[in-house]
Amino acid sequence: MITVVLDAYGADYSPTEPVKGAILAVKENADLHVTITGKKDEIKKVLVENKADLNRFTIIDATDVITNLDVPTVAIKQKTESSLYKAIEEVRTNNDVYGLVSGGSTGAVLTGAFLRIGRIRGVSRPALCPILPTIYDDRQVALVDSGANIDCKPINLVHFAIMGNAYVKNVLKVSNPRVALLSNGTEDKKGNDLVHTTFPVLKEMPEINFIGNMEARDLLFGDVDLVVTDGFAGNVLLKSTEGAISAFQKILKSKVKKSLTALVGAIFMKKVFKQLKQKLDYNNRPGAVLLGTKKVVVKAHGSAKANCFKECILQVVKMAEANICKIIEEEVSKVEVNINEE
Amino acid sequence: MITVVLDAYGADYSPTEPVKGAILAVKENADLHVTITGKKDEIKKVLVENKADLNRFTIIDATDVITNLDVPTVAIKQKTESSLYKAIEEVRTNNDVYGLVSGGSTGAVLTGAFLRIGRIRGVSRPALCPILPTIYDDRQVALVDSGANIDCKPINLVHFAIMGNAYVKNVLKVSNPRVALLSNGTEDKKGNDLVHTTFPVLKEMPEINFIGNMEARDLLFGDVDLVVTDGFAGNVLLKSTEGAISAFQKILKSKVKKSLTALVGAIFMKKVFKQLKQKLDYNNRPGAVLLGTKKVVVKAHGSAKANCFKECILQVVKMAEANICKIIEEEVSKVEVNINEE
Repeated sequence: MITVVLDAYGADYSPTEPVKGAILAVKENADLHVTITGKKDEIKKVLVENKADLNRFTIIDATDVITNLDVPTVAIKQKTESSLYKAIEEVRTNNDVYGLVSGGSTGAVLTGAFLRIGRIRGVSRPALCPILPTIYDDRQVALVDSGANIDCKPINLVHFAIMGNAYVKNVLKVSNPRVALLSNGTEDKKGNDLVHTTFPVLKEMPEINFIGNMEARDLLFGDVDLVVTDGFAGNVLLKSTEGAISAFQKILKSKVKKSLTALVGAIFMKKVFKQLKQKLDYNNRPGAVLLGTKKVVVKAHGSAKANCFKECILQVVKMAEANICKIIEEEVSKVEVNINEE
Repeated sequence: MITVVLDAYGADYSPTEPVKGAILAVKENADLHVTITGKKDEIKKVLVENKADLNRFTIIDATDVITNLDVPTVAIKQKTESSLYKAIEEVRTNNDVYGLVSGGSTGAVLTGAFLRIGRIRGVSRPALCPILPTIYDDRQVALVDSGANIDCKPINLVHFAIMGNAYVKNVLKVSNPRVALLSNGTEDKKGNDLVHTTFPVLKEMPEINFIGNMEARDLLFGDVDLVVTDGFAGNVLLKSTEGAISAFQKILKSKVKKSLTALVGAIFMKKVFKQLKQKLDYNNRPGAVLLGTKKVVVKAHGSAKANCFKECILQVVKMAEANICKIIEEEVSKVEVNINEE
């Protein structure tokens, strides 16, 4: 049996969608048990209404909620009755639990994970790693760090590469992942100071199939399995990609609305638009995994629906099966990095 | 009369498309004269074939070309017979010329502009400023710096804001432009060290309508007129936006091809797709203007068509009419910046 802890509060559709996600997850995996933190009565109500097998769930009552308005460092210390605090405590203290899923405040989840769960030995900084679709139906691209570490040193990026590589290889099951460094051009000499110092280190690492610098333009074109970058540029990359697609769809819709012919065309294209929506919808993927903490943490989108929570919970299971934390500890310890910072 | 210099070589469709662009430009502006640098016979041939009024053009013969394979700093010193070198010399030495348009190697254009044309007094670093469409048909968004300065200090970003603001206000004619700082969240405290130090300076500047931090996600949604950022993040923002839209279109096309019904729908939607293409096509906009050099430089896309070159040339005219270089010099000199770098 594997146990995953779910923080059922702090997300937009809490507790209904997170709990429904847990119900979907246990249906897909007979060995799974989900411990849910939050308001006991409300959680139980959702379980009962959805005819869930109550034996597959444990509820830890938590009356308080950490919201996006809370200051993460303060909330994680003071809101000890919150669903997130209790979820982290359960993950931290219970050896049978492999990881945690939360759709709550990213800042609070990260702070809780850093301060209370703690880093894997040797890891300089844990980092967020979401997965994006590509133009190919059978390829994805992972991105590390998407925003946990805003100011980075080369050693951090090297660790992101090692952890991301371990994740893509062992959990996403991509053999010999192609790892690239985000830069302002593909040439070896392109980049800011951080990229310049990190590039030669990654190039010398036999454990990593480093294919060099990549441009932001190529993110979704399927030629890279893992993009390594600092959390600021990673955040810009991730959000501008999401934003551009969303803006494109909005422009398309507004133009279609103005033409009857186009409206008819859109009806014929309904199925394709649905496929496209499905492919791009983050609810069909697990959220960003936090790599480098002693227990696994998966962050669902704040506005995630049940299916996203299901994917997040099942991702923890896959990470447990791969024993990713052990692999990361081993891989990081293997690497001796000499960095020349100018 | 206003004279603009056009480097007709170094771009993918040189010299045909640049020269055709010049022909289109003089047709739109009766006061315009274009001095074209490059292989005289080839340029003349394009002019004659397109029945251009030869009195509107001067050709400066240049037998050599700087390509993307050249090392910019070396090429700008040694390839003195190149079209770009000669174009820069003409801009630099001829008082009647306001600016230069080139579709050649970005590195070489920037190096030439920095080293030979030189900075406006008081400007710490010139910066590239492209314009993008938004979801609204009547709003654009400018971005500075999109990649000329990969490692930046706060004073650079402050100057980018001043120059970009002057450009958007006086050339794009947006009154009271909304200026935002690219960050990893909209809250005041979000950002990397560079953003943290720059934010309070911009906030205190009465000349700038600073609306705070913005997320990359919001670039195309029309609520910001000017995005200020360092050249690395700016490059990521610009290229991921272009890449995401291009990938989306590619996915859409591949799905449509697999379904006859969708193909029929696409035919009905043809006009809308065309409108969309037109809106997003960089050939319908001027390239990135370089702000902060003594003469105006506009960089066309390497694969730009005639219309893009036309827009670039006419943008130099607008910048001349606004006397943007003078305004930038005045605005920069007005501002006394005290920056607390930690």
